[in-house]
Amino acid sequence: MLGKRHGILLVVSGPSGAGKGSLCTALLRDCPEVGFSVSATTRRPREGEVDGVHYYFLSEEEFQKAIDAGEFLEWAEVYGRRYGTLRGPVEKMLAAGQDVALDLDTQGATMLRKIRKEGVFVFVLPPSFNELKRRIIGRGSETPAEVERRLREGMGELRLLSLYDYVLVNVSLEKTLRRLQAILEAERCRVSRQECLPNLL
Amino acid sequence: MLGKRHGILLVVSGPSGAGKGSLCTALLRDCPEVGFSVSATTRRPREGEVDGVHYYFLSEEEFQKAIDAGEFLEWAEVYGRRYGTLRGPVEKMLAAGQDVALDLDTQGATMLRKIRKEGVFVFVLPPSFNELKRRIIGRGSETPAEVERRLREGMGELRLLSLYDYVLVNVSLEKTLRRLQAILEAERCRVSRQECLPNLL
Repeated sequence: MLGKRHGILLVVSGPSGAGKGSLCTALLRDCPEVGFSVSATTRRPREGEVDGVHYYFLSEEEFQKAIDAGEFLEWAEVYGRRYGTLRGPVEKMLAAGQDVALDLDTQGATMLRKIRKEGVFVFVLPPSFNELKRRIIGRGSETPAEVERRLREGMGELRLLSLYDYVLVNVSLEKTLRRLQAILEAERCRVSRQECLPNLL
Repeated sequence: MLGKRHGILLVVSGPSGAGKGSLCTALLRDCPEVGFSVSATTRRPREGEVDGVHYYFLSEEEFQKAIDAGEFLEWAEVYGRRYGTLRGPVEKMLAAGQDVALDLDTQGATMLRKIRKEGVFVFVLPPSFNELKRRIIGRGSETPAEVERRLREGMGELRLLSLYDYVLVNVSLEKTLRRLQAILEAERCRVSRQECLPNLL
């Protein structure tokens, strides 16, 4: 057996509509040993979203208070709404050796990369521009102007790809999930992540 | 779909008796898309080994001729016998985008790391010292003095671990194989290995 190691911070990011949310949900369903940090946000819940499960839905005032108190590991403003990851629960899981998955927009991921170089950063892409459009419209939670803006910004986000370790083109959720699991499994075997030599020889 | 990429050079190495040979055989059986380079050696065939399949069995003179002609990507002398990887077939497969697995002793792997930094280097460890001893004796092809020497040198090889990217403790072949496949799958998704951006957006 290999020695004890620090948990892996697995950041799943990419343009809105690439499917990173569904991918993280599927990962946590299949890998119950992976911890998940529920994000805080000031946006309104979509159909079926539950407070404390999908997000902590905060008011602008509550969110600002948490920023001022230094409670966020990262936070970002996306399409006029704020999203953030609470620092405490994440650091606790990592220190205990638990891997933690974060579903972040590219702004938050870029910020986190700077302070968490050892994290594993995965960029999820939609298979095509048309598919991206179909998914964003199909979600039904954005106005036509918002759809337009998300598509335009999604294209711009491609230039951030070089900040990431891995790229997944999300053609089918099942295949992409299998690859994400392979990435996590491989990273657990990295020599640089072993804190002590195996207890052998 | 991601763009065309160069093949991955997957080097599987570790102390004699760790099980890297069986692991490579199993990888090639399950992943027929992976190319394998048959090594050349001056050692005598073990029971069941076939010339041109498990090794090219060369005389000392033939081996020296290939060295002089620059035909080896790496070669090493281990326990008085020479082992080497022929350069031509490997480079041809890699250039065509095919991943290639190499089963190398730590001497050859160390040499190759210097000139092939982009390769993926995996160190395979036996689960314990006693298990290593059991495997080497069980193979029945070494004299007691050779067994003793292999065990002593195997311990010394542990200091080379930091030259590798990944480490696998070979408790069960099935589990270790699954991890090796995950490493290959993950490495295929590395941003740094994509030669052109996906044809999208």
